[in-house]
Amino acid sequence: METWNAITSRRDVRDFADRPLDADQLDRILEAGWRAPSSRNWQPWDFVVVTDRDQLRELAKVWQGAGHVAGSAATVAVIIPRLEDSDERERAQYDIGQATMSMQIAAADQGIGSGHAAVADQDQARRVLGFPEDRIAAYLIDFGHPADRPLTPIRKPDRRPFDEVVHRGRW
Amino acid sequence: METWNAITSRRDVRDFADRPLDADQLDRILEAGWRAPSSRNWQPWDFVVVTDRDQLRELAKVWQGAGHVAGSAATVAVIIPRLEDSDERERAQYDIGQATMSMQIAAADQGIGSGHAAVADQDQARRVLGFPEDRIAAYLIDFGHPADRPLTPIRKPDRRPFDEVVHRGRW
Repeated sequence: METWNAITSRRDVRDFADRPLDADQLDRILEAGWRAPSSRNWQPWDFVVVTDRDQLRELAKVWQGAGHVAGSAATVAVIIPRLEDSDERERAQYDIGQATMSMQIAAADQGIGSGHAAVADQDQARRVLGFPEDRIAAYLIDFGHPADRPLTPIRKPDRRPFDEVVHRGRW
Repeated sequence: METWNAITSRRDVRDFADRPLDADQLDRILEAGWRAPSSRNWQPWDFVVVTDRDQLRELAKVWQGAGHVAGSAATVAVIIPRLEDSDERERAQYDIGQATMSMQIAAADQGIGSGHAAVADQDQARRVLGFPEDRIAAYLIDFGHPADRPLTPIRKPDRRPFDEVVHRGRW
C-alpha cells in the first residue's frame, strides 16, 4: 500500500474480527517497531507478543480500559526498564511512542487495525507475560482485522484545526 | 512509495542538501503529525515549523547536539504544555513520540531525511519561536534531502538482535 494511504487509514480499532494474523504480517509489525529510532540508539524496549486467546483474556485484565485486548488477534506488550530518573523515564516514553506508531502504520499498511491500552496492574501483567521485576509493561498495542469495516483513508480526522496546531515561523 | 519502503528507508540524517522542501511536501509531513493518535485524543502538541536559514541557525543553539538543525531545509519544533504531573508528562512524551514517527515516515515516503534534537535551552527556543511561558519545546525534528546519498531500504539496521527483542507468548 502507498505510505500515505497507510498513514491516513490508521485508526483506533477496538472491535476485532475473529481471524488470526498471518505469521509474516505479525513479524512485519514487530520488525517495524524493532527498527524504530531511539535516543542514542538505546532501544529501551522489549516486545512480548501474545496470540493465545486465554492469555489475551488474562492480559485484558491489566486495566479497566484494556478490555479490547481480549478480542485482538495479537497484542504486543511494550516492556521497558523500571527507571528511577524522571528524564530517562520521559525519554523512554518518547521512544516507545515512536516504536508504537511505526508498528501501527505497518499494521495499517496490511489492512490491520490497532489500539492502545495502558497497564495499571503490573502484577497481573507480570503473571501473564513473565517479564522480570526490573521491568514494567508500559503499553499494550493490540492488533487485528476490524470487525466493522475495512481501514480506508480518513478524510476528516477528529483533530484540532490544522492551522491552529501548525505555526509557521513563529508561534 | 510503498509503506514498507518508507519504514525501512527512514534513517537519521544530520547533513542536509542545500535544497528547500516543496510546500506540499512539508505540509504532508505536518499533516502526518497532526493525524497522530494520542491519549483520549488530547493532542498535547503544537508544531512550529521553521524554514528561514537565519532562524534555523539560532534554533540550532538550543542544545549542543542540535547543530544539524542549522543546515536543515525545515525544522518542526514540537511544543507541549508545561505539565506538573509526572504521569501526564510521560503520557505527553509517548504521544509526541507517535507524532514524531508519523512525520518521519511521511518524510521518508518523499525521500526526505530527518533527525531529532533535544532542547536544553528553553529560553533560547522561546526567543526564536515565540511560544508562551506555559509551554516548552520538547524536541526539534529536522528535515531535508540527505547531502550524501538518497534514502534506500536499510537491510541490516544497527539494532539488538530481533529474536532478543521479540518474545513469543512469554518473556
